[in-house]
Amino acid sequence: MTRGKVYLIGAGPGSADLMTLRALRMLNAAEAVVHDRLVSPEILALAPRGARMIPVGKAPGHHSVPQERINEILFELATQGLAVARLKGGDPLIFGRGSEEAAYLAERGITVEYAPGITAAQGMAASCGVPLTHRGLATGVRYVTGHRAADQSLDLDWDSLADPETTLVVYMGAANMPEIALKLIRAGMPPDLPVMAVASATTPRERRLLSRLDRIGLDIRATPLKAPVLFVIGHVVSLHAEYADVSGAVQPEGMAAVAGE
Amino acid sequence: MTRGKVYLIGAGPGSADLMTLRALRMLNAAEAVVHDRLVSPEILALAPRGARMIPVGKAPGHHSVPQERINEILFELATQGLAVARLKGGDPLIFGRGSEEAAYLAERGITVEYAPGITAAQGMAASCGVPLTHRGLATGVRYVTGHRAADQSLDLDWDSLADPETTLVVYMGAANMPEIALKLIRAGMPPDLPVMAVASATTPRERRLLSRLDRIGLDIRATPLKAPVLFVIGHVVSLHAEYADVSGAVQPEGMAAVAGE
Ligand SMILES: C[S@@+](CC[C@H](N)C(=O)[O-])C[C@H]1O[C@@H](n2cnc3c(N)ncnc32)[C@H](O)[C@@H]1O
Ligand SMILES: C[S@@+](CC[C@H](N)C(=O)[O-])C[C@H]1O[C@@H](n2cnc3c(N)ncnc32)[C@H](O)[C@@H]1O
Repeated sequence: MTRGKVYLIGAGPGSADLMTLRALRMLNAAEAVVHDRLVSPEILALAPRGARMIPVGKAPGHHSVPQERINEILFELATQGLAVARLKGGDPLIFGRGSEEAAYLAERGITVEYAPGITAAQGMAASCGVPLTHRGLATGVRYVTGHRAADQSLDLDWDSLADPETTLVVYMGAANMPEIALKLIRAGMPPDLPVMAVASATTPRERRLLSRLDRIGLDIRATPLKAPVLFVIGHVVSLHAEYADVSGAVQPEGMAAVAGE
Repeated sequence: MTRGKVYLIGAGPGSADLMTLRALRMLNAAEAVVHDRLVSPEILALAPRGARMIPVGKAPGHHSVPQERINEILFELATQGLAVARLKGGDPLIFGRGSEEAAYLAERGITVEYAPGITAAQGMAASCGVPLTHRGLATGVRYVTGHRAADQSLDLDWDSLADPETTLVVYMGAANMPEIALKLIRAGMPPDLPVMAVASATTPRERRLLSRLDRIGLDIRATPLKAPVLFVIGHVVSLHAEYADVSGAVQPEGMAAVAGE
């Protein structure tokens, strides 16, 4: 039996030029491309002509391909001898379930190779001029998910998270931001800590909403942003206006109204 | 006065193919390259012939160029009208002081553009097959620095850090690892939590040391690794052997002896 291989590729946050050289090389070699919904059209356009394109991403409100089925699809394509590109937004090993797919495939004898990707948080940082660490403002950075499984409470350790010296990036948090902000304040975070919500960072569809912890819940309801959205919470956000490279990014209408600008 | 511009470029963890397309484009356009010591020889070799190469990195035990002087060098080159590439290891906005340089330059009217870079932690993850998050093992990831200013105590919030469900990546921590591990255990981290030290991740010089929290202090003294080194602490490290792509990486001699392998 001929066996192909699977490239687990981080496509980065959206802008095609934020792919790594390794990711592009692997994508160029692909005969089948299995991709998430988050992978931008700019990047899908780089797939080789003639490659089989297989979308498996979750669109909100739509039936998505279960993880087990994605694993099987990758395995089936690889056992047909194909070079398979598994394209994911950001980095495959951060909130990407890439390691679950790799484990499934490796157990079945399929060779897996990784290409790391620029995370959505890093894309936001470069695009908005908001560093993830900065002397005097943030000694470290932390990525968490604000998503909750159906009917479950948010599984976050609020006391540990309530450290204003650590930049907190909340992935998948749009729906639960009001609750997250409230719990962080209750755990001791300053109510006026700056927060920025960024949608589709690094793409022409990028939108930003500048706010603060005690208002972000209201602001994000008043000015909903289209997915994907992340939130950066921390003093570093205050650097935003100072030297942001806003090229290609459009300021949301509501921005001047919030955060005392 | 003609003014150049400064590209603040993340060179990634070391392997040249882990640069982004944007980083490579900016480097190709550079007339002067101001680089840290961490930037690998593989990547410096990609600088355009004829570009002025200006090393400003800190070599341990050697006098390094102070940050204020680096800022001035960048400003002087830009005011000569040059396109300046400021090359940093990993991402310029994570433990890279990129935002300090950007602020200094922007205040003086110099245009700054960012290229994010794959972090050392992400390079380690892809190279060693250790995901930074993974269902059931890590709900988030956190980057901290284990460095301390001369005569100062380690400025870390141990209670907040002692969360075994969050992958903890310690940058610049080789000298203080015995103390860090001890304090984490005292704050409640399981003594047998797996830890991996990785040196020069993603390069041909990559070395790994697998250990656990209650032994890493001793192990790293017994088997010192050459800088740069980072530490990954968390359950995700246990996935390492299962499906690591070890291509290009050499196992350290001591590895089989630790962690019960
Ligand atoms: C399943 S996670 C994937 C994270 C990705 N692996 C990474 O490393 O950044 C999906 C979430 O990432 C965030 N995200 C991804 N791309 C983004 C972008 N371009 N702008 C803002 N947020 C983004 C959103 O929070 C989204 O809900
Ligand atoms: C000043 S910090 C730069 C971090 C970088 N900006 C990033 O985003 O990864 C330097 C530290 O990064 C870590 N580091 C950088 N490159 C590395 C590599 N290839 N392997 C292991 N650690 C690395 C080491 O902990 C080193 O002391």
